[in-house]
Amino acid sequence: MTEDSRLLRWEQRTEMPLALASLAFLAGYAVHVLAPGLPDGWRSLCRAVTLSAWALFVVDYGVRWRLSGQRLGFVRRHWLDTLFVLLPLLRPLRVVRLYEAVLRRHGEPRLSLYARVIVYAGVSTLLLGFAGALAVYDQERGAPGADMRTFGDAVWWACSTLTTVGYGDVVPVTPLGRTIAVGMMACGLALLGAVTGSFSSWLIQVFSREDTYRNEDGPPGK
Amino acid sequence: MTEDSRLLRWEQRTEMPLALASLAFLAGYAVHVLAPGLPDGWRSLCRAVTLSAWALFVVDYGVRWRLSGQRLGFVRRHWLDTLFVLLPLLRPLRVVRLYEAVLRRHGEPRLSLYARVIVYAGVSTLLLGFAGALAVYDQERGAPGADMRTFGDAVWWACSTLTTVGYGDVVPVTPLGRTIAVGMMACGLALLGAVTGSFSSWLIQVFSREDTYRNEDGPPGK
Amino acid sequence: MTEDSRLLRWEQRTEMPLALASLAFLAGYAVHVLAPGLPDGWRSLCRAVTLSAWALFVVDYGVRWRLSGQRLGFVRRHWLDTLFVLLPLLRPLRVVRLYEAVLRRHGEPRLSLYARVIVYAGVSTLLLGFAGALAVYDQERGAPGADMRTFGDAVWWACSTLTTVGYGDVVPVTPLGRTIAVGMMACGLALLGAVTGSFSSWLIQVFSREDTYRNEDGPPGK
Amino acid sequence: MTEDSRLLRWEQRTEMPLALASLAFLAGYAVHVLAPGLPDGWRSLCRAVTLSAWALFVVDYGVRWRLSGQRLGFVRRHWLDTLFVLLPLLRPLRVVRLYEAVLRRHGEPRLSLYARVIVYAGVSTLLLGFAGALAVYDQERGAPGADMRTFGDAVWWACSTLTTVGYGDVVPVTPLGRTIAVGMMACGLALLGAVTGSFSSWLIQVFSREDTYRNEDGPPGK
Repeated sequence: MTEDSRLLRWEQRTEMPLALASLAFLAGYAVHVLAPGLPDGWRSLCRAVTLSAWALFVVDYGVRWRLSGQRLGFVRRHWLDTLFVLLPLLRPLRVVRLYEAVLRRHGEPRLSLYARVIVYAGVSTLLLGFAGALAVYDQERGAPGADMRTFGDAVWWACSTLTTVGYGDVVPVTPLGRTIAVGMMACGLALLGAVTGSFSSWLIQVFSREDTYRNEDGPPGK
Repeated sequence: MTEDSRLLRWEQRTEMPLALASLAFLAGYAVHVLAPGLPDGWRSLCRAVTLSAWALFVVDYGVRWRLSGQRLGFVRRHWLDTLFVLLPLLRPLRVVRLYEAVLRRHGEPRLSLYARVIVYAGVSTLLLGFAGALAVYDQERGAPGADMRTFGDAVWWACSTLTTVGYGDVVPVTPLGRTIAVGMMACGLALLGAVTGSFSSWLIQVFSREDTYRNEDGPPGK
Repeated sequence: MTEDSRLLRWEQRTEMPLALASLAFLAGYAVHVLAPGLPDGWRSLCRAVTLSAWALFVVDYGVRWRLSGQRLGFVRRHWLDTLFVLLPLLRPLRVVRLYEAVLRRHGEPRLSLYARVIVYAGVSTLLLGFAGALAVYDQERGAPGADMRTFGDAVWWACSTLTTVGYGDVVPVTPLGRTIAVGMMACGLALLGAVTGSFSSWLIQVFSREDTYRNEDGPPGK
Repeated sequence: MTEDSRLLRWEQRTEMPLALASLAFLAGYAVHVLAPGLPDGWRSLCRAVTLSAWALFVVDYGVRWRLSGQRLGFVRRHWLDTLFVLLPLLRPLRVVRLYEAVLRRHGEPRLSLYARVIVYAGVSTLLLGFAGALAVYDQERGAPGADMRTFGDAVWWACSTLTTVGYGDVVPVTPLGRTIAVGMMACGLALLGAVTGSFSSWLIQVFSREDTYRNEDGPPGK
């Protein structure tokens, strides 16, 4: 059995458990951040779930690196996976890819290009907004001079950032909170690009169709 | 008579009355929000108009569901109509579609693609901005700590949000007001995409025309 | 002599004087706003220049309406000119069109499409930003609670608005100032669309050229 | 030897030393701004490095002007170089061009158009953001009423400006600081255009490929 096929089999078998682990990580982190008054036993459970999910990601990354038979090239080629190992909060984003795999397995027709871009951009934005609001809220909660007091404030801030509106009534003030915020601004820019780009290319496509239609029917009829 | 044709006839006959009802709903809600000092009789009338318009939308939705002969598929396929039943303030947006129907009936030529996108985006933005400003103002008016004191403030806020400028001098502070605001930010993003996309595709079209023109006349002349 | 050719001749002859009048209007208004300490004689002169320039625009509009032989259709078809008669501060925008006419008369080659879009968008933005900052500053100067104290503040506000950044540290508070601001936000949105659209269509063009180049050279070489 | 080839040889030979000088200028300026508590000897060294690097740029510009054999046309055609001589802080931007030259010399395949646009936009944005934050921080540091107290604040402001989010919690207040800020807003607008444009043209390309693919395989299979 070649290395490639072993890597492929590993990936196919671990895809679903790892997706569940990434959702468990997100849920565990969310409980940790949003329910500080939970009894100690539950808090320890949350921590255990989060850490073991992270451990799973690290092990999976290690095994795939090993199976790939590559050295540093693996890190560069799989930079998104490397990022997910370092920032496991973002790993649920891979679920988007899983969703399409599930769709294909069930024999359902693939979505059109625009529908896919809109679904991907929408789901990614929701996940990013939620994870970013959680992480920033975790940093800002107790900081002196912070005006982000409830999780609702954090979600409100995340929405105004991702759409590049940027009111500035609620803003992170801690260094780490601002670092996360810069990442979210970049995502907001990309989101804007995705929305605009989809609309623009859709318009161009509709137009060229109308043009073709008119050219075919037009000369005699009109 | 088949179910489909009955559905079609129902839609054709109810289109105009329902459009008027949706404008009546908007007007009734606007009076309710903007004229709190009205005598009680007038306020009751406003409420009656608003509620009966909403009832009409619900009845229309139910009849169309029945006539369609579908079950849950109807809700998914007509998700925009479902949204309008839940948020009747947005229903005037359907008037945009009606406008084109009226144009076609009068035998006027259809607008070009760009003109249509601009008219749709413009009218939708005006309606959305007005309805959103009304709804947010209704929430914020009496809230403690709110800086949205007059309806003018609400309109100013709506404009700065829909263009994604986001000054932040006037911002909703109530949970419901912020929820509506998030919806308006998303619309602002879509509006930006529509404007940018139209401009982009218009430029590409002009360019390809110039190119064709040059290629036809160019070689001998230049 | 037909009406059309008389209209054309009128337009050709009045184009240059009216362009100078529109610049005189802008300059007169700027002096009126920015130099409130000027002696009364000079201030009256400014007012005279501004008013007579405006009178010229109204007369020109009337003559062209008459010569066109149309009724209300003229207003709709020449809506931009109608706008300029009502808001003469924006009339210098027509100078952009004049610039191209001058270029053509001198036999210079026409700029490429992208260069023209960039030049138009740039010059229009500069003019709009300057005129808008002047008009808003004129409204806000003495208003209670306004934080726009110097003309520098007004220019700073105009820049942050036209680029849709919207800091919100300097914001108009008077109803008229805000109305002008809404117009400038819309222009900022259009400017964003122009920049994005130009870049997008330029990229598409470069790409399709590279594609053609590769297809022609590629098969044997690669 | 013709003038053109001499100019070309000059440019090839000075490219690398000037790139290093531009980085030295940036580093020297950064140390000057960020380490005000440095002993006097080091500060003088920094100033010497910065000034001699600038002198190099001026000499190089003069020599190239001379070798080009042109007069004012040189300034206009090489407007970017002229800008770099006046604002040497931006000169590292030319390193982006050098990077591609190095790549080509090593025989590595050229990046695809989208990868190049993304790399250029990304590196330019990082350099611009860093240089802009430095320059604005240098202006604002001691200004009365400024809320930009640390360099971290300046970087935070630069990020929120370049992405056109514009929170407004940290804003320049000095005239020179605001002038630099306006330049950065324009860059943010261009960056937005680049991101959106790339995405849009990428989508169009993917779509047209899918279309071709479908047309080739479709008729018999589907």
